[in-house]
Amino acid sequence: MELVINYISILGSFALAISGALTAMKKRFDPFGVLIIAFVTAVGGGTIRDMLLNGKSVFWIDQTSYIYFILVGTIFAIVFQSKLYLIHRPLLFFDAIGLGLYTITGVQIGIQYELAAVNCVILGTITGVFGGILRDILVNEVPVIFKKEVYATVCILGAILYLVLYRFEVMNPVLQFIPVLFIIGLRLLVIHYNISLPSLYADERKKKRTDK
Amino acid sequence: MELVINYISILGSFALAISGALTAMKKRFDPFGVLIIAFVTAVGGGTIRDMLLNGKSVFWIDQTSYIYFILVGTIFAIVFQSKLYLIHRPLLFFDAIGLGLYTITGVQIGIQYELAAVNCVILGTITGVFGGILRDILVNEVPVIFKKEVYATVCILGAILYLVLYRFEVMNPVLQFIPVLFIIGLRLLVIHYNISLPSLYADERKKKRTDK
Amino acid sequence: MELVINYISILGSFALAISGALTAMKKRFDPFGVLIIAFVTAVGGGTIRDMLLNGKSVFWIDQTSYIYFILVGTIFAIVFQSKLYLIHRPLLFFDAIGLGLYTITGVQIGIQYELAAVNCVILGTITGVFGGILRDILVNEVPVIFKKEVYATVCILGAILYLVLYRFEVMNPVLQFIPVLFIIGLRLLVIHYNISLPSLYADERKKKRTDK
Repeated sequence: MELVINYISILGSFALAISGALTAMKKRFDPFGVLIIAFVTAVGGGTIRDMLLNGKSVFWIDQTSYIYFILVGTIFAIVFQSKLYLIHRPLLFFDAIGLGLYTITGVQIGIQYELAAVNCVILGTITGVFGGILRDILVNEVPVIFKKEVYATVCILGAILYLVLYRFEVMNPVLQFIPVLFIIGLRLLVIHYNISLPSLYADERKKKRTDK
Repeated sequence: MELVINYISILGSFALAISGALTAMKKRFDPFGVLIIAFVTAVGGGTIRDMLLNGKSVFWIDQTSYIYFILVGTIFAIVFQSKLYLIHRPLLFFDAIGLGLYTITGVQIGIQYELAAVNCVILGTITGVFGGILRDILVNEVPVIFKKEVYATVCILGAILYLVLYRFEVMNPVLQFIPVLFIIGLRLLVIHYNISLPSLYADERKKKRTDK
Repeated sequence: MELVINYISILGSFALAISGALTAMKKRFDPFGVLIIAFVTAVGGGTIRDMLLNGKSVFWIDQTSYIYFILVGTIFAIVFQSKLYLIHRPLLFFDAIGLGLYTITGVQIGIQYELAAVNCVILGTITGVFGGILRDILVNEVPVIFKKEVYATVCILGAILYLVLYRFEVMNPVLQFIPVLFIIGLRLLVIHYNISLPSLYADERKKKRTDK
């Protein structure tokens, strides 16, 4: 079972590498610039998580298979970029799978290090979202996850769900799969219905009210 | 005494969270984007400091009270944003307190790890200023502390003052409070008189001279 | 021999500090903003490398001479900025030396930590290029190394060359100097002939074809 999760998690990094490579190509980066952005997008979140934990080595240093999948994902994105808009949905699907698995992996590592619940939620969220944040910082854009569509919110809710199930001693594999599927499902709903949370800026809200 | 400092330091993180949340709301981030920016602003500097030190765990993982104060600060900023301009000065005051305590905490941790004096100054400065730098990077702005008003300079001077007092074996609580008060006071003076260091760009200086 | 390398590596940090300081001055940062950018440019890559490795302390915390050379480099850049365009080439030369030595240092540390070959290449590349990337992020620009001129590519090729020689048990000092000289030479060729890799963005390539 754990092996299956590991394989799907690596598939998630493959999808994130494609997303990073496409962003970098649109910005007209050179090939190794594209590779670096793909790499940071795919492993950035987990890397920050591992650096925060005292005595934890960074996951892709131990599991080099991630690196090769990122390499393949980048080449795939370069070769098939003009066709990739056709599989836009499958990409978002992989991205959602990656988000679900990355988030829950982060939470589990927090539990393994016996951290407080709130720290587990934070570690899960960092693992899920910081790859995309770092990608956007490197290409000098405002991180898309802060504005468009519900993203971090989905991670936080999924992480809390995991902790609730864990507290009630729900056993594997239900414990593992329910929150992962919850994140994937909620994220796909968000994409499908184009749901976004309202901005909280007061002036804007006032303006909207006046517009009526 | 140490307990008092700890409480005030947490108040500093509360003020920094408000500053981060206000910045993110102006950029029209969604609520969890606002929370993430508030979090990074409040703990970013100390987090980088702790990651630089070998074998040191990150402070907010051990002291989760920081996280709850950030959460409260964020909600406070969301609810009272339209009134917060009224307490602009109090906010800057808390920010200055946070700066003073954060900087000296960084220096003290450097001493505790038996680092060279110059490293202690660097750790103090990182603790004091990198939260604000990370905030500005995440919202895709040039970090304000590099340009407007004296900020990093205040940290560096305060850190050096602490090390001088420490070398002359000035005892607590004078050792702790003088440099903290020095940073707070100097920072408030800087804000009050709107003092900024000159840019060093040669073309600009030449141009100014010609203007005369 | 090792001592010589150490001295040249510190000279590399001196050159990188100048490059960072000049960038910051053009952006009209205040003096301590300039110093912070110079510092991050010079030590950023090696700092990220050391944070990724479990149980490795950050190099400039152990070797404070780096810090003093950065300080001198920054003051040098401030004082002589209007004359520095005259030694533009020497600066690029030092930067290339720094790139070569930094990259190979990163690879060697990877070998010392018994990492997989691909991780050694990644560590070498991070050491060589992330100082410049962080500099550009801090001044809110798209990192120049992703677009203009071959940069990361040179690191990656040099790191691979080192690993090939190491595998064939080529002994020091040949093992050390050939890849360093390879990186420096290739980088200088790239600068001299203004070589850049093509952007991979499909629309652009199509457009260019149509232009004919």
